[in-house]
Amino acid sequence: MSARVYLDYNATAPLRPEARAAMIDALDLTGNPSSVHAEGRRAKGLVERARAQVASAVGCQPQEVVFTSGATEAAQVLSNWRSDGVVVEPTAHDAVWAHHSPTERPAIHAYGVANSETGLLAPAETLTPAPDGGLLFLDITQAVGRIPFAFSWSGADLAVLSAHKLGGPRGVGALIVRQGLDIPPLASGGGQEMGRRSGTENTAGIAGFGAAAEAAQRDLADGVWSDVEKLRKILESAIEDGPGAPIFVGRDRDRLPNTTCLIAPGWKGETQVMAMDLAGYAISAGSACSSGKVRSSRVLTAMGYSEVEAASAVRVSLGPATKEDDVCRFAEIWRRHYDKHRSRAA
Amino acid sequence: MSARVYLDYNATAPLRPEARAAMIDALDLTGNPSSVHAEGRRAKGLVERARAQVASAVGCQPQEVVFTSGATEAAQVLSNWRSDGVVVEPTAHDAVWAHHSPTERPAIHAYGVANSETGLLAPAETLTPAPDGGLLFLDITQAVGRIPFAFSWSGADLAVLSAHKLGGPRGVGALIVRQGLDIPPLASGGGQEMGRRSGTENTAGIAGFGAAAEAAQRDLADGVWSDVEKLRKILESAIEDGPGAPIFVGRDRDRLPNTTCLIAPGWKGETQVMAMDLAGYAISAGSACSSGKVRSSRVLTAMGYSEVEAASAVRVSLGPATKEDDVCRFAEIWRRHYDKHRSRAA
Repeated sequence: MSARVYLDYNATAPLRPEARAAMIDALDLTGNPSSVHAEGRRAKGLVERARAQVASAVGCQPQEVVFTSGATEAAQVLSNWRSDGVVVEPTAHDAVWAHHSPTERPAIHAYGVANSETGLLAPAETLTPAPDGGLLFLDITQAVGRIPFAFSWSGADLAVLSAHKLGGPRGVGALIVRQGLDIPPLASGGGQEMGRRSGTENTAGIAGFGAAAEAAQRDLADGVWSDVEKLRKILESAIEDGPGAPIFVGRDRDRLPNTTCLIAPGWKGETQVMAMDLAGYAISAGSACSSGKVRSSRVLTAMGYSEVEAASAVRVSLGPATKEDDVCRFAEIWRRHYDKHRSRAA
Repeated sequence: MSARVYLDYNATAPLRPEARAAMIDALDLTGNPSSVHAEGRRAKGLVERARAQVASAVGCQPQEVVFTSGATEAAQVLSNWRSDGVVVEPTAHDAVWAHHSPTERPAIHAYGVANSETGLLAPAETLTPAPDGGLLFLDITQAVGRIPFAFSWSGADLAVLSAHKLGGPRGVGALIVRQGLDIPPLASGGGQEMGRRSGTENTAGIAGFGAAAEAAQRDLADGVWSDVEKLRKILESAIEDGPGAPIFVGRDRDRLPNTTCLIAPGWKGETQVMAMDLAGYAISAGSACSSGKVRSSRVLTAMGYSEVEAASAVRVSLGPATKEDDVCRFAEIWRRHYDKHRSRAA
């Protein structure tokens, strides 16, 4: 697969070299972070260093970071919390949506800062504390390291994120808990993570998360994502060049710099994904987190698109390693397939 | 720390080279196992290969393995299950004990196959289905790869284990669910792990777990742990050689081949750990999973030892990489400190 081009950063980003190096160092370090001997203290130090790195990237205090096995585990706090109910926006990721419960007096309002399927950013007014006194929960998984965000300035009480979307490893993430807020533990047992999440720490994963968060923060400050946005403009211009341009979801609204959600009505998303896969390009139909499920996107129908349109969407998501040539060749090949589909359908 | 000797395998074992190699291969493979493109399918293949390796080591079917972030997360199934209550043996690990609830009609009976602090094996009669029809839950964390065990022959309905005790990475483990048994999901969201545990898979960790499980199974078959047991005999003989021998917990009972639990009444466990740490040896007082907590062992008081005795215990746990010289030097140094303590106390 030497000539493969990976355009599915929102599903998972390639591991950053800084994260890879930090993980290999951690693999070679024996020691349980709960052990009091030298080996244990070194493992603990590695976890605490990563906690500071993640806190810096998220814009919170280190003691507000609870390491988990990913955003999905962190989002379980929504169901563990209280029985008063959780109001979730209909475009939320499945890992958040799974916890919604209609209620008259919601305990928690849950929003995604950036949508994984469309890249659309939540309007600023939704990211403020609810007037009913409910807690504000933010899914910042797709946002951290790609757009400016600071937990401490957001007014949020809770947030969740995942390492592998910002170039860290799969299987590690964090729950951010505003200082002073008391949460039910995500897991009971040995009392790790200040009693908020028991279980021996994923030392290598956490070290990789920390290193990736630091590198992502640096990239963002260096304007790397402005360059990615330029590539997306090239991609979208090349794709729409010709008769019967497809729909670009939310093209005129605030979006992540790297995400294009493309609707080619009548040409099924999964068929597009398979055709592009055979041509050497990795893209996706809907959110990749839905373990093999293929169905029309709940996110797009909630936005008002028809079932047919929602089932004809693909997501192309770029990253810092994407090259202009990758994008141009992809646009050309996609367009050729699309024109063929249109001529057959006509 | 070039001259350090690690005698704390029950807290965490050094990463096996097979696991290290499998993890590095996995790090270099981009792809979300839920993605349908080539990168995703390769990541999925890696997870399924590891599932077969773990199943083989545990003696169960691959489809009975649910990957988690460790034994602690897997043990949350005890609290998620039903409200009918869980009967837990008093010597259980904190990650299991946290879920105990006295009840008249227990839904689940939870036992540890091998105790992490003492190495004592559960009597065979406790490992059979309960006469009241309750489910049988086994903590097999310290047993797998060290003593012969097969889930499918045990009569158990559920079991939990952790990769890092058998030479895999920290932060990954499994819940074993007898085929046909329906469990509430450990996490809701994207529906990974056949709906039993949502969240993007820890691909590198899972690959390392699989490789470590395969290597551990091979080592056990090759008699590696019989050699470890010989070293423990040498250790215990050397330590008791002299006046006022300490107490060896459960020395005449069935134990793990690698574990010595040693009581030196009046000489605090944590003081012993610190003295040995300064001398270059990593051992532990009680279970290392109890995140910095220092207190007398619940396990030992439940066995009938006094508070003073329980607070004066240390655990020395050996592994395949332990050398005879390590054990002899440790015994000599420990004995010298012990004799000094006895002469001061006299």
